[in-house]
Amino acid sequence: MDATQDTLSLVLFSGTDDNLSAATVMAAGAAAMGKRVNLFLEYWALEAFRKHALTKDHGVSTEAGPEGARVLAAWSEANPVHWSETLRQIKDMGDVTVMACSLSMDIFGLTPDDLDPLVDGVEGVASFWARAGNGQVLFI
Amino acid sequence: MDATQDTLSLVLFSGTDDNLSAATVMAAGAAAMGKRVNLFLEYWALEAFRKHALTKDHGVSTEAGPEGARVLAAWSEANPVHWSETLRQIKDMGDVTVMACSLSMDIFGLTPDDLDPLVDGVEGVASFWARAGNGQVLFI
Amino acid sequence: MDATQDTLSLVLFSGTDDNLSAATVMAAGAAAMGKRVNLFLEYWALEAFRKHALTKDHGVSTEAGPEGARVLAAWSEANPVHWSETLRQIKDMGDVTVMACSLSMDIFGLTPDDLDPLVDGVEGVASFWARAGNGQVLFI
Repeated sequence: MDATQDTLSLVLFSGTDDNLSAATVMAAGAAAMGKRVNLFLEYWALEAFRKHALTKDHGVSTEAGPEGARVLAAWSEANPVHWSETLRQIKDMGDVTVMACSLSMDIFGLTPDDLDPLVDGVEGVASFWARAGNGQVLFI
Repeated sequence: MDATQDTLSLVLFSGTDDNLSAATVMAAGAAAMGKRVNLFLEYWALEAFRKHALTKDHGVSTEAGPEGARVLAAWSEANPVHWSETLRQIKDMGDVTVMACSLSMDIFGLTPDDLDPLVDGVEGVASFWARAGNGQVLFI
Repeated sequence: MDATQDTLSLVLFSGTDDNLSAATVMAAGAAAMGKRVNLFLEYWALEAFRKHALTKDHGVSTEAGPEGARVLAAWSEANPVHWSETLRQIKDMGDVTVMACSLSMDIFGLTPDDLDPLVDGVEGVASFWARAGNGQVLFI
C-alpha cells in the first residue's frame, strides 16, 4: 500500500448548498479518520467559493423542489453551523487542502484575489491527479 | 491488497429514478463479480427510500427534458422490473448493505420506522468510511 | 499494486456540456500522466454521443442559470476547441477507450450505427467492472 491510499480527493463541480454540505460531511468524516483530504473546485463549486460569497444562499438541487428546499432551510435555521464553517474547522485540525481548478478560473475570469481565503491556491488537473495518487476520488 | 479493495461503496445523493436505476445497475454488476457493496443513502436518495415510497414516481434528472422522460417511461412500461426489485434481488444473493446517513435522517426528521425494509440500518459518515476502507467509492 | 490501479474509469451519466467538458479534462489529465482511461456512456451522456450530435449544444446544468450559461458560451466563443475534439486528441495519443452501456443502448433504442465514431463499442456493466479492476472510478 502506498501513502496516497490514505488520501481522499473530492472534485467539487456542483455549487448548490446541498451538494456542498454533503461534500463537507464526507470530507469531515474522512479527515476525522486520519485521511489526507484534497478538494478541487471546478465550475459552479468554484463560483460558490468567491470572496464574500461563501455563506450566501447557493440554492439547492432542482430535484429538491419547493418542499425539499423548505426542509433544508428549516434545518439550517435550527442548526446554524454553515458547511463552510465545518470546512474551516477541519482545515484547522487536519490535513485538508482546497485548490481551485486553473481552467475553471480562466473560464470564469477569476484571479486568486477573487476567492475566499479558505482556498489555498490554484492548480491544473495534472497537479490534482499527482496529489490524488492512487487514493479515492469522488466527483460531486 | 487488503480485503476492502473488493468493496464498492455508493453514496446515493440524488433521488431521481434515472440516477437510482443507474446506481442499482452499477451495484448489481459489482455484486455479480463478487464484490461487497455498500449503499449509503443521503438527502434526496434517502427520501426515495421512505416506507411505501420506493416504487413511486421519483422523477428524472432535469436535463432529461420531456422527451427523455417519455423514453424512460416507455422503457419502464415494456420492462416492468423496478430498480428497487433489482436491488432486492442482489441483496438476497450477495453481500449488499443499504444504510441510511444519520445526518440526513436528522435533516428530514426521519426515524428507522419511516424507512422501507430494504434499508438495513442507520450509520454516521465515520462508520461509512470505516466500512468503505480502501475500496472504490462513487457519489451518485 | 496491480496494473488496474493505473486505470481511471469514468461513468458518464450527465450529458450537459459543462459535465462533459469537466469529464474530458479529468480524462485528459489522467491520460497525460500515463493512466489508462475508460469512459462508459450511460443515459444522457450516451445521447450526447449520437452520430452527428457530438458538437451540438447539449445545454448546461440547471444550477448554472442564465448568467452561468452566458459565461460558458462566451468562453466557448473565445476558446473554440470543443470538448469532443480534446477527447479525440487524447484517444489518438493515449490508452483511452469509449464504450457505450448496453442497457442504455436498449433504453434509448440505439444500435452501434447510431453512435459517433468516437465510441469504440458496446459493453455491459460486468465488462465495465472487469476493465475498471481496482482502479479509480468516478460517476459524472
